[in-house]
Amino acid sequence: MTLPIKLTTLLITLAALTTAMAETKRFVLTDTTQGIHVESFNLSSKDLGMTDGPAWSIRKYTLHGGKEEGVEVIEVDNGKLTFSVIPTRGMSIYRVTCSDVRLGWDSPVKDLVNPAFINLEDNGGLGWLDGFNEMMVRCGYQWAGHPGDDNGRLLTLHGKAGNIPASIVVVSVDTDAPHTIRIRGQVNETSFKFADYQAWTEINTTPGSATFSLNDEVTNLSDYDREFQLIYHANFGPPLLEKGSEFVAAVNTVTPFDDAANKPAEVKNWTTYKGPTKGYGETVYCLVPYGDKKGNTTVMLKNAKGDRGIACSYNIKQLPNFALWKNTDTLHDGYVTGLEPTTSFPTTRNFERKAGRVPTLKAGQSRQFQLSYTVLLDAASVARTASEISKIQGKRKTTVSEKTLK
Amino acid sequence: MTLPIKLTTLLITLAALTTAMAETKRFVLTDTTQGIHVESFNLSSKDLGMTDGPAWSIRKYTLHGGKEEGVEVIEVDNGKLTFSVIPTRGMSIYRVTCSDVRLGWDSPVKDLVNPAFINLEDNGGLGWLDGFNEMMVRCGYQWAGHPGDDNGRLLTLHGKAGNIPASIVVVSVDTDAPHTIRIRGQVNETSFKFADYQAWTEINTTPGSATFSLNDEVTNLSDYDREFQLIYHANFGPPLLEKGSEFVAAVNTVTPFDDAANKPAEVKNWTTYKGPTKGYGETVYCLVPYGDKKGNTTVMLKNAKGDRGIACSYNIKQLPNFALWKNTDTLHDGYVTGLEPTTSFPTTRNFERKAGRVPTLKAGQSRQFQLSYTVLLDAASVARTASEISKIQGKRKTTVSEKTLK
Amino acid sequence: MTLPIKLTTLLITLAALTTAMAETKRFVLTDTTQGIHVESFNLSSKDLGMTDGPAWSIRKYTLHGGKEEGVEVIEVDNGKLTFSVIPTRGMSIYRVTCSDVRLGWDSPVKDLVNPAFINLEDNGGLGWLDGFNEMMVRCGYQWAGHPGDDNGRLLTLHGKAGNIPASIVVVSVDTDAPHTIRIRGQVNETSFKFADYQAWTEINTTPGSATFSLNDEVTNLSDYDREFQLIYHANFGPPLLEKGSEFVAAVNTVTPFDDAANKPAEVKNWTTYKGPTKGYGETVYCLVPYGDKKGNTTVMLKNAKGDRGIACSYNIKQLPNFALWKNTDTLHDGYVTGLEPTTSFPTTRNFERKAGRVPTLKAGQSRQFQLSYTVLLDAASVARTASEISKIQGKRKTTVSEKTLK
Repeated sequence: MTLPIKLTTLLITLAALTTAMAETKRFVLTDTTQGIHVESFNLSSKDLGMTDGPAWSIRKYTLHGGKEEGVEVIEVDNGKLTFSVIPTRGMSIYRVTCSDVRLGWDSPVKDLVNPAFINLEDNGGLGWLDGFNEMMVRCGYQWAGHPGDDNGRLLTLHGKAGNIPASIVVVSVDTDAPHTIRIRGQVNETSFKFADYQAWTEINTTPGSATFSLNDEVTNLSDYDREFQLIYHANFGPPLLEKGSEFVAAVNTVTPFDDAANKPAEVKNWTTYKGPTKGYGETVYCLVPYGDKKGNTTVMLKNAKGDRGIACSYNIKQLPNFALWKNTDTLHDGYVTGLEPTTSFPTTRNFERKAGRVPTLKAGQSRQFQLSYTVLLDAASVARTASEISKIQGKRKTTVSEKTLK
Repeated sequence: MTLPIKLTTLLITLAALTTAMAETKRFVLTDTTQGIHVESFNLSSKDLGMTDGPAWSIRKYTLHGGKEEGVEVIEVDNGKLTFSVIPTRGMSIYRVTCSDVRLGWDSPVKDLVNPAFINLEDNGGLGWLDGFNEMMVRCGYQWAGHPGDDNGRLLTLHGKAGNIPASIVVVSVDTDAPHTIRIRGQVNETSFKFADYQAWTEINTTPGSATFSLNDEVTNLSDYDREFQLIYHANFGPPLLEKGSEFVAAVNTVTPFDDAANKPAEVKNWTTYKGPTKGYGETVYCLVPYGDKKGNTTVMLKNAKGDRGIACSYNIKQLPNFALWKNTDTLHDGYVTGLEPTTSFPTTRNFERKAGRVPTLKAGQSRQFQLSYTVLLDAASVARTASEISKIQGKRKTTVSEKTLK
Repeated sequence: MTLPIKLTTLLITLAALTTAMAETKRFVLTDTTQGIHVESFNLSSKDLGMTDGPAWSIRKYTLHGGKEEGVEVIEVDNGKLTFSVIPTRGMSIYRVTCSDVRLGWDSPVKDLVNPAFINLEDNGGLGWLDGFNEMMVRCGYQWAGHPGDDNGRLLTLHGKAGNIPASIVVVSVDTDAPHTIRIRGQVNETSFKFADYQAWTEINTTPGSATFSLNDEVTNLSDYDREFQLIYHANFGPPLLEKGSEFVAAVNTVTPFDDAANKPAEVKNWTTYKGPTKGYGETVYCLVPYGDKKGNTTVMLKNAKGDRGIACSYNIKQLPNFALWKNTDTLHDGYVTGLEPTTSFPTTRNFERKAGRVPTLKAGQSRQFQLSYTVLLDAASVARTASEISKIQGKRKTTVSEKTLK
């Protein structure tokens, strides 16, 4: 509905748009404030007469039937890499493919479930698991992490962010080379008197590139300071995850989440992965990564042979903590690892608050989050990334805690 | 689905229709019992050849995208006053405009949220706040008021009524002048063994008038007597609400809801309003209004200058209690006051029952609720309304309780 | 979405399809794994040139408006018997008619409610009652029965199965006489780490027949063994249910569910029905039926005159227990009886587990459930069915427990 907008919000929005407008073709697919909604959408480099680079295409469609009824999907093919974004599910990234590498995993949850069919409070606050199958889902924004009581309120697993349909969805393509493609979505987590977070999510890529980036801005629109939490829950199964795959990062401290993660046989191999293992369940390690002088860091998952991998670069000033989720269970029930840059560790908000890890967004304040994912397609790229990470680590030590987090 | 209808229900319905049929043009927009559903609808005085009065129009459309997906809206323009009704949200009234007066308020919740995306049990029963932004939302029908336990059941804030899609929606226009326009909606709150309330809601207006009226009938269709509660939660922000705005009513008793409302500086100014005040939160006063000999009463909110206002007239035999909700918080987080004629006070049903304020609808019994809202567009109208209210009060005293309700 | 499928699943599916493909015309109405969804569908014997038997028709449409928005309905008319199946509500059977007999009942819940509008956790886990009005609803698959705590988790009434939209819906008709019609639906109850049940439901009938059959297969797709429960909750009101109607079955043991069912006046008449009785509420009897040497058994509900009835035949090796739900309350609030073949009794799963009545599906294991319902249209059919049941009972005794189940 057309509604008055707070001036500061308007200015922020205008600023964002102005930057873009001069240089980009913009297509608004959804805007509930303007009554705009496009049921299906197709756009290609050919449509825009962009013949000076790799051919690309963007497609938006709506799923129908079963639990997928009404779920919207945007598929981007940048000529080398494809990804799908789900506006109905908080702008989550469902799948990414690049050459013979698939990012994401095989969850037993096969459908892209409409949040209308999910009750986050189900199963003691674990209802989120009824829809969990994404390559990347944001956990937040009021809270993230394990479900639990916080001053009398049940906070559900990983918050609401991944199950909120986006109110505004915009596709844009830069007019000038390299014709950066951006899919932006505004996700509002709003409850009178309790929450008023506006998340402008963005995923962008350049035609022909093996890289895609997230460029998010979370704003506390309220006139009151409020806590927030945010986990970038990125998940990888085969082919990157296999017996002998390795996690590589510049790490300051490693703390086993719980007793399962603190078994000697697990701790000593915390960076390497087992093959699919019945009864494994999961182990989680809570890391504080190192960054370079500017705070930039890179983490990598590489396959056993070391000729395929995924690198994620971001800044530890934005996301100081990191959860490594090793769920090397059976292929059917979920053989997957999560590489999760985060504001906090994934315990309950109550626990994290006591540990001093729950940040506050002041009234009207915004925070930016930039993450860049690059698919590594040969041994040289993997080695180069390992070398970069090694340079960040330098001679600094990695300390593995003997005690668990909880 | 076409289903057998209990005879008494049928007769009630037929009686209602017969009255109307002789004199009105009827348009059924939705009727789930007949499989009728009209996706969009437009009607104007011109379409019906009604040229003997002010031009009017009615428009129905469906919102798409985000949390608004599938939400139906009916907009009525009576030539002087416009209002929007949301069948998907229990026939709530979203916005009203008349000349330079806007009724309603600016909630941080901007979307017209589909109830499919709301979990009323969220946040300890406060999920209702995720969709709260209406000018008028009915709270009921099994219960209304604050969330809380009632014999082992969590009753959620303000009940289900505002988040139940209407099963039948009918637009009608009288053939004869003054061509009264009616938007009627049947809202069913039904749960096998627990609830079977049928609410026939109606909002009507006359072309060219600054008045709109509610004419509701709530029936307990069950063969068993059942408790019910109903609050007409009408909400006003700027321009009627501003520093110095005043609430005017004929009042018998005033009871501060809680300690916040019972602070001396608040109590002594309970009829007047502060400007937007950071940290104010809310104060609530529980009133028992006076009526005239027939029980009719009028309450008014007027602006500081006294040249704009809203008057609400109803009968205290139908709605004996009244909640004055003063939420003069910041403009962004919600600067709003609720003028709320009600069966009970807005504590929990359990508390209200003990206080003897929860009515029972006997098996098959109906109750009518008529409320009339008039936008006051000049100082003379405001003064005249104040005078009428003063006449109702007469020499009767207003007692302000020294103790809080709870 | 198109997704990799576990090989065993694929083989099972292919096997099922191969059997069918040679002999049937198949029409996929929904398949979320293939992006297939047909909004409306009409098929008749004439369309397929099948003129060698009774004329039949199949119709699929989508309901719009109110709580029914988006609910899909499939209606089958086999020339003698009609039934409607609701893919959006777990492939429940809504209504069946055959000559002057209607199977099903008149719930106060009139709408076919979209599960998006139902919160199963509402009312202490009784939200299922907000949509309960079917002739046959499956209760399961993780659990069924009364709501209650099970190791810290609230299990809601009768599980999720009846409120899960089917992911795949297939209509098929045999090419050769007698042209069996099948409506198959895949219902997935899936939650990462907790549940991965795939229920292939089927209802089939032969043109001109007064019989329809269920042919379901429930598979635990997980690599871990998991408990499951399943109740076939089939419900009958007038005309089969009336004062003097009788339940007929070959019964080993009868256990009153609770004190209400154990009153002497109730127990001694446990097989017969009262007319609509205000204040009756419900009585439930937990039966262990006898089967013939192969385990086959038949239960029957017959009207007072004994010239109309419904017979349900199934195998007690598949469903060893049976709940007889006698809800002879008022016509409006629900005059209905449930004939419910089941894995367990309808207490909580926690209670049933302790009693040893909760079966386990091993990793990858499937179970079949076949039930056949025949409408009995004259006294001879009723008498013949009674005779068959009597033959199953033989000289074996029926023991009525003096103690209640709980």
